[in-house]
Amino acid sequence: MAKVLTPRSESYSQWYNDLVLKADLAENSAVRGCMVIKPYGYAIWEKMQRVLDQMFKDTGHENTYFPIFIPKSFFSKEADHVEGFAKECAVVTHYRLMNDPDGNGVVVDPEAKLEEELIVRPTSETIIWNTYKNWIQSYRDLPIKCNQWANVVRWEMRTRLFLRTAEFLWQEGHTAHATKQEAIEETETMINVYGDFAEKFMAVPVVKGFKTANERFAGALETYTIEALMQDGKALQSGTSHFLGQNFAKAFDVKFTNNQGKEDFVWATSWGVSTRLMGALIMAHSDDNGLVLPPKLAPIQVVIVPIHRKDEELVRIKEVVGALTEKLRAKGVEVKFDDNDKKKPGWKFAEYELKGVPVRLALGPRDLENGTVEVARRDTLTKEVVPLEGVDEYIVDLLDKIQKSIFQKAYDFRTESTVSVETYDEFKEQIEKGGYIMAHWDGTSETEQRIKDETKATIRCIPLDQPEEQGACMVTGKPSNKRVMFARAY
Amino acid sequence: MAKVLTPRSESYSQWYNDLVLKADLAENSAVRGCMVIKPYGYAIWEKMQRVLDQMFKDTGHENTYFPIFIPKSFFSKEADHVEGFAKECAVVTHYRLMNDPDGNGVVVDPEAKLEEELIVRPTSETIIWNTYKNWIQSYRDLPIKCNQWANVVRWEMRTRLFLRTAEFLWQEGHTAHATKQEAIEETETMINVYGDFAEKFMAVPVVKGFKTANERFAGALETYTIEALMQDGKALQSGTSHFLGQNFAKAFDVKFTNNQGKEDFVWATSWGVSTRLMGALIMAHSDDNGLVLPPKLAPIQVVIVPIHRKDEELVRIKEVVGALTEKLRAKGVEVKFDDNDKKKPGWKFAEYELKGVPVRLALGPRDLENGTVEVARRDTLTKEVVPLEGVDEYIVDLLDKIQKSIFQKAYDFRTESTVSVETYDEFKEQIEKGGYIMAHWDGTSETEQRIKDETKATIRCIPLDQPEEQGACMVTGKPSNKRVMFARAY
Repeated sequence: MAKVLTPRSESYSQWYNDLVLKADLAENSAVRGCMVIKPYGYAIWEKMQRVLDQMFKDTGHENTYFPIFIPKSFFSKEADHVEGFAKECAVVTHYRLMNDPDGNGVVVDPEAKLEEELIVRPTSETIIWNTYKNWIQSYRDLPIKCNQWANVVRWEMRTRLFLRTAEFLWQEGHTAHATKQEAIEETETMINVYGDFAEKFMAVPVVKGFKTANERFAGALETYTIEALMQDGKALQSGTSHFLGQNFAKAFDVKFTNNQGKEDFVWATSWGVSTRLMGALIMAHSDDNGLVLPPKLAPIQVVIVPIHRKDEELVRIKEVVGALTEKLRAKGVEVKFDDNDKKKPGWKFAEYELKGVPVRLALGPRDLENGTVEVARRDTLTKEVVPLEGVDEYIVDLLDKIQKSIFQKAYDFRTESTVSVETYDEFKEQIEKGGYIMAHWDGTSETEQRIKDETKATIRCIPLDQPEEQGACMVTGKPSNKRVMFARAY
Repeated sequence: MAKVLTPRSESYSQWYNDLVLKADLAENSAVRGCMVIKPYGYAIWEKMQRVLDQMFKDTGHENTYFPIFIPKSFFSKEADHVEGFAKECAVVTHYRLMNDPDGNGVVVDPEAKLEEELIVRPTSETIIWNTYKNWIQSYRDLPIKCNQWANVVRWEMRTRLFLRTAEFLWQEGHTAHATKQEAIEETETMINVYGDFAEKFMAVPVVKGFKTANERFAGALETYTIEALMQDGKALQSGTSHFLGQNFAKAFDVKFTNNQGKEDFVWATSWGVSTRLMGALIMAHSDDNGLVLPPKLAPIQVVIVPIHRKDEELVRIKEVVGALTEKLRAKGVEVKFDDNDKKKPGWKFAEYELKGVPVRLALGPRDLENGTVEVARRDTLTKEVVPLEGVDEYIVDLLDKIQKSIFQKAYDFRTESTVSVETYDEFKEQIEKGGYIMAHWDGTSETEQRIKDETKATIRCIPLDQPEEQGACMVTGKPSNKRVMFARAY
């Protein structure tokens, strides 16, 4: 059977695009930079949402919804924020169309010009803090811990499905606190939630750390990030949690009376993950045959393919499958029985491989005679024949094993791909090989920028658990007390 | 305790606004016509979404996501659709802001003008059918049954929270079929799903019927609706399902080869419900004390309020409540124990009444002695003292009873509020009293329009189960073979 994907070795980037399209995850739309998320891709995103949403609720957050439009003037209120966010964005200037007087469809009604332009939200800090102003008077109104699942728009010039699109789906949490300490704790809680989600559900190991000033969210005092390593050796920023200090409270005049009766500005955090996680999931695990999905996020965890020539064989297979499916569903396993007789088993095998279904069962007349079933693993592409009796238990264990194995593979890859270097020459050589590089840096934005300009590598983060270690910046030789993590990134 | 809501008898419309604000459901935002949905309101909407989403999946639909922007030219492709939808809408004309040369924040960059304006979707038929064109070649690609949960924007001039807002949240289903018959069946399946949801979950009785040509969706051959009656005697269109024929397939050139090898245009449906349902839910059941929620959609189904003077009393109450809460949760009941000692029980009682929590338990030292608990019903505002032993079973039954009772009350109100009239004079008198009026109509748009102009009443629908009955149009005297349903509407 001909391979449908460009092999990774030939072009990793083409392989990714092929995979996203062929596995029916998403496609480009008629609107530049905006994607259509197809049913199979959306089903994975929905699974992610369900898990994350529960994690947010378990940590005391509530869902809300704020407007998609933000008055232009709001962006000017927080000085750093305007630089970072109010530039490449979709601007609504009019609110009405009219029939073209020349009879060619519709044109914008020049009379219907907005007094103040509206920006399609690139992120919602400004409109939310403008709202929080009315919700907060006293410490008794705090904390406020809101989240929203929403679409946002950033007018990106070069877009790639899931990784960088003009419109994307995300969640954004926005919390308000009475003390700095509490806000910092919230910021950390959420980066840990993201880290747990990435590792335990996506099976993607991540490094948690601080962003440098250059890479920080516009308006944040501190940005925490989770960084994931893709198979091509590039890093992908997968989620961020921002300690915003009192910046937005000051910009929108949000004060509260504390429990000593004193007035103060409110402390803020915000945090988000987006459909970009789909890109991370795809690129971390998949292979030249298609998607490899961790069982916990697979819309179909087990597919059963009947192998038969005669109709009466199918009848007997169906009986066995019916009983097995029931047992598996009772154990919470999502099973699909594909008895479409217009497609051959070989076609189905390739199709479910492409779609990353973790476990495939094949069942034919000989299996029925022998009381066996063929079990194939998507991640290792291995097969074995096991007794039908007890295969439900076997599959539950196998799904768990696959989940761990996929994580371990990505973890080992990351370990192998992480090196420490001492000199800038070493660094330049190493960066061509991809992966993470741990190196000393003098802590200045200038040096960071120079490294970026010369090598296209950025400081992905200063890992939270990075040990203190006296050293010298690989570029300037100035003292450094900690290595930071560099990589080229998406 | 002072009433926080304007009584319905004084001003129904003010009562509604008060309730939406005071019960923390939603509020107006800084952007004209756009609302902020607050945590408690969003929690109800989320419950609605969960149930509907499962109903859609159970009827074979898959979720997807299509872009928020639609190229302006797409609206001109379907002649009726452009009239209905491409007028009052948000138009994106630019994609960049720049620093104001005068130093006053940011201004639109005149260089960054889009070649073709983008419309923020008021509904997605056009962009979806433009996409389906690439998905459909043969009958084997059909049916396609997609749904999306999304935000849409219609530039409404007069807005009211939930009922009519410039931006609202909704789901829109868009299906493609090989035959007319199958598309009609889909349209009917979905209006039945909506009807079941309204009656079984929202406890709102609805009339299912066809819209007249005047009231039909722009581009549809037939629009099915569910109509609900509010307490003030006005109708609220609560969900619609459209049979679109081949209109959008023709507009976007979506053809397929059928199983005889012949080429034909694809048949379409679309259907949607929105955050407007929140308005229906609120207005159908609530009273002067606040919200009345059907248990199946209540974020908190049971609230437990401790009544105590001394701390040791609270300790003993907590023990009993802990055990009870556990039993209730095991039965799937959502319970809140409110032991906030900064608020008095009386304040809490009023608060949970305002928020429509179906069942309130109060537990004090005397109850502990007697082995009893006070159970209050929100819908009837009645209280009784019942034995603690077995109260979990009692509550599960009570929630079920309340769900049915709320529906029955609304059903009886509708029955009382539905009258048949024979003459236009009678009609004019009756319409002032509110409610549904069943009357004969000659089937013309002119007569319908005249009635609307003269009485502000519209034909809400031609009920699906309306019996044939020879009669004469109340206005023109022309023959009619069926009564239709009139009302003033939101």
